[in-house]
Amino acid sequence: MTVTRRSFLMRLAASGGYAAARAAMATLGLGAIDVAGARTNPPLNLAPGSGNGRSVLVLGAGIAGLVSAWEMRKAGYSVRVIEARDRVGGRNWTIRDGTRIEFTDGTVQVADFAPGHYFNAGPARLPSHHRTILGYCREFGVELEAEVNSSRSAYFLPDAAKGGQPVQLRRAVNDARGRVSELLAKAADRGALDHELSREDRARLVDFLKIYGDLDGQLTFKGSERSGYTVYPGADAQTGERPEPLSLEALLDPDLWSALVFDELLIFQPTMLQPVGGMDRIPAAFQARLGDAIILNTEVAAIHNKENSAGDGAGKGVSVAVRDRNGGNARTLEADFAIVTFPLPVLARVDTNFSADVKEAIASVEYDAASKIAWQSARFWETGSNIYGGISVVKHPTALIWYPSGGFHQPTGVLVGCYNIGQAARDFTGQPLQAQFDASRAVIDRVHPGSAALLKNPVSVAWHKVPYSLGPWVHWATPHERQYVRLNRPEGRVHFAGEYLSQIGAWQEGAALSAHHAVAAIAAAVAGTSSKTTSTTERA
Amino acid sequence: MTVTRRSFLMRLAASGGYAAARAAMATLGLGAIDVAGARTNPPLNLAPGSGNGRSVLVLGAGIAGLVSAWEMRKAGYSVRVIEARDRVGGRNWTIRDGTRIEFTDGTVQVADFAPGHYFNAGPARLPSHHRTILGYCREFGVELEAEVNSSRSAYFLPDAAKGGQPVQLRRAVNDARGRVSELLAKAADRGALDHELSREDRARLVDFLKIYGDLDGQLTFKGSERSGYTVYPGADAQTGERPEPLSLEALLDPDLWSALVFDELLIFQPTMLQPVGGMDRIPAAFQARLGDAIILNTEVAAIHNKENSAGDGAGKGVSVAVRDRNGGNARTLEADFAIVTFPLPVLARVDTNFSADVKEAIASVEYDAASKIAWQSARFWETGSNIYGGISVVKHPTALIWYPSGGFHQPTGVLVGCYNIGQAARDFTGQPLQAQFDASRAVIDRVHPGSAALLKNPVSVAWHKVPYSLGPWVHWATPHERQYVRLNRPEGRVHFAGEYLSQIGAWQEGAALSAHHAVAAIAAAVAGTSSKTTSTTERA
Repeated sequence: MTVTRRSFLMRLAASGGYAAARAAMATLGLGAIDVAGARTNPPLNLAPGSGNGRSVLVLGAGIAGLVSAWEMRKAGYSVRVIEARDRVGGRNWTIRDGTRIEFTDGTVQVADFAPGHYFNAGPARLPSHHRTILGYCREFGVELEAEVNSSRSAYFLPDAAKGGQPVQLRRAVNDARGRVSELLAKAADRGALDHELSREDRARLVDFLKIYGDLDGQLTFKGSERSGYTVYPGADAQTGERPEPLSLEALLDPDLWSALVFDELLIFQPTMLQPVGGMDRIPAAFQARLGDAIILNTEVAAIHNKENSAGDGAGKGVSVAVRDRNGGNARTLEADFAIVTFPLPVLARVDTNFSADVKEAIASVEYDAASKIAWQSARFWETGSNIYGGISVVKHPTALIWYPSGGFHQPTGVLVGCYNIGQAARDFTGQPLQAQFDASRAVIDRVHPGSAALLKNPVSVAWHKVPYSLGPWVHWATPHERQYVRLNRPEGRVHFAGEYLSQIGAWQEGAALSAHHAVAAIAAAVAGTSSKTTSTTERA
Repeated sequence: MTVTRRSFLMRLAASGGYAAARAAMATLGLGAIDVAGARTNPPLNLAPGSGNGRSVLVLGAGIAGLVSAWEMRKAGYSVRVIEARDRVGGRNWTIRDGTRIEFTDGTVQVADFAPGHYFNAGPARLPSHHRTILGYCREFGVELEAEVNSSRSAYFLPDAAKGGQPVQLRRAVNDARGRVSELLAKAADRGALDHELSREDRARLVDFLKIYGDLDGQLTFKGSERSGYTVYPGADAQTGERPEPLSLEALLDPDLWSALVFDELLIFQPTMLQPVGGMDRIPAAFQARLGDAIILNTEVAAIHNKENSAGDGAGKGVSVAVRDRNGGNARTLEADFAIVTFPLPVLARVDTNFSADVKEAIASVEYDAASKIAWQSARFWETGSNIYGGISVVKHPTALIWYPSGGFHQPTGVLVGCYNIGQAARDFTGQPLQAQFDASRAVIDRVHPGSAALLKNPVSVAWHKVPYSLGPWVHWATPHERQYVRLNRPEGRVHFAGEYLSQIGAWQEGAALSAHHAVAAIAAAVAGTSSKTTSTTERA
């Protein structure tokens, strides 16, 4: 039971020729580490008032920090949230007209979008089984709508070097299914699977494959209406015209395969959801409730356990040195506990009196790279290609074209014209911005000829260059089990939380669940020290 | 190039054991008739003013009638639309609080829904490739949102007699894909397909199937994360628990197959769309523009070609006898042309002087049956099952459970708890309403235990009992090619239009395209008779 997204990715990587697959996997949750311990976390359930008289400093106002603060405040803790940026949300960042995008290399962009347009530079979708983060949307009344992650009207664009033309996904998906079904039906029909199948099952399998793959009576795949039309059926005698089915050879292009599987990956299956108006409606809802408990524009310089105690709750609290983001107004905050939700590359720069193994864990986790580009454009994908949301997969460093899931039929919309990760993202974002934009524009124009002139006002967000993030997520292809195990345990009165400490890495759900885990650990420590009737070991 | 939905349905029906499949196909476009003639209809493009001085009576204010009227009025024709109901839209009918539902058998229901709730009793989705009807949405600013036709969190419920438990669709879909891939990979690996495959293709096929079906290194399917979890991954050590993969035997239950294919059928593939607030926002947009050209509550009693001419445009116009719906105020309207968009069982009761072959065509087309039931309910499918839109397929006369695509996280919503067609619908709706509601409630409770008490205020719409409809669509399993061909030609100055005269039967797109076809024929006749420079034969 420990297969996980990670081994899936490893297998993908191992199967060779897989740049496109990796690119489509850009958005995978890449966590999943097998750790000894409880297999099932109990739901977080802090008694109201159970935190009365206790204080906590939450360092970082991303999803992990906001969830931690909200839950602890509901339980009566005195909570302050320290955030270096001028906004909450962390990587949950929605860019609108006027948003300033600064990189660590000094690059500055200012988004120039029409009113109402937005670009979710970080997380942009919520799987239906991510109950925790969706639960906060329900609790706070954050309005949700369907996020169209998959459209059969979108395209796969083969490698330019192969000279291929864009292939509509309905054709690729259904011709692949037809070819697979035909081969299997013929093999079964001639008895090649009599080892595996009873006579009765063989007959039923063949019947099934006729339906599944749309085969004819001779078990041959001659194309399927499911693969779409070049001329659609109409009135009277217009029965429509269909393209020839794709050859097996075309379907066995490994560049195509990620386009054939991505929307069956657990985290990408329908239904996907998004907040109406931008993903940052979630952190905004927390912020509205946490009010001035959140202190923005304030950097953390140092975190010290006051007696550097290693035992549960045996220390005397935490002191945190902070300063204004411009470097002034240095001061020290104190609390009974701290929850650190920074990305590790940011935490690694903070002075601490943590033990050597914790410092080593923090310093040694490698982070990944990722970049997205967004354009404002007339909605040529709707008027020209009947595409309403979904993703075209392109064999190109920009990896995809991602169409907006809302605002259908408005004059313009925001199109994501690049989402790459890893070395591809490092290489791509090593170019000047204009070269990146030119590349994105060119590949969009290959999928949607004539669209180049419509693409306006691009912005790029390269997460590995974003201050206070320094990466999109942990680089999971590097083993980090040791660090994961260590940082899931507190260091004195300092607890750690973030998506990287969950089995749902890179997703807001993981951040929320990791926050619950840290909060529960603090609550257990408090219960252990404050309750006369319950032993620490039972609760800790 | 004449495969079509119809032959697909025939094959489904022929493959046996297929009640569930037929039920899931309830919503199929069942048209597709091969007819000699132009394979491609030119886009409708009437010159402004080209209809000046000409008049047309449009009989019926469903989509075909509204589209006809709108296009002809834009071209300058004098247009009146005669509609027997007290509303426009025809089968495009959105039921809200207070809507009165009358059946031909005298049954009366009045919907009791919360404000803002609605039930699309007729069409409820717009495929992304239905460009014509979507084009009217764009032209009129009818706001659209994604219609979630498919959710991997929804269920398949096996036959109660088989005692099966609900199976989540992500599990059925992905375990089926895994099993198919495993069988084919093993057959290919042992050389059973060396007839069909080169050595190189064999190796690539096996590589592909490892990805496609999530197989292990031994080409074995041991289950897949894609099939979901019984306990989802969480923080720290919670790696999640997965169900055992479904057996091949369970997957070869023919009752399941429609659930495995329906969302790859062309008309059900993502992206599907719906108007925000109800499908009747489309007819309402036409109505707002056509204004008092639409005459409601008025029945057609007779339609006569004034000289009963059979030739193109050689007649002297059309006279139409009408009366108020209560039988009073009989009067006769005249126009140069008429477009009849009634369902044929309604038209068959109208007095005409049509030729024998037309009368025979009208009288001999058999119509189908279909019924839907809607409930108002607390959103247990969201809170209990993470279902946001989509369809659960049930092996039961009610056929499905269809979850709302909007209003996520509101306290209540409208759940469709039945959508059956054909003989199943006739049998089912032959019972008293209360028995139908009890059956629907019971099957929903089997999929969602404990939900029965939450289901409130049901309403049923049985289209074969709805006055002025008398059925949902033509019964395509009966051959009707002769009638299709005949009625696609005008009878004197009377033209026919409706989804049933298109290759996209039962869909609004077909109604709109058929309307275009009729309008173009009238325009050609007018051009032929009014232009000195163009011969009739060239234009007709």
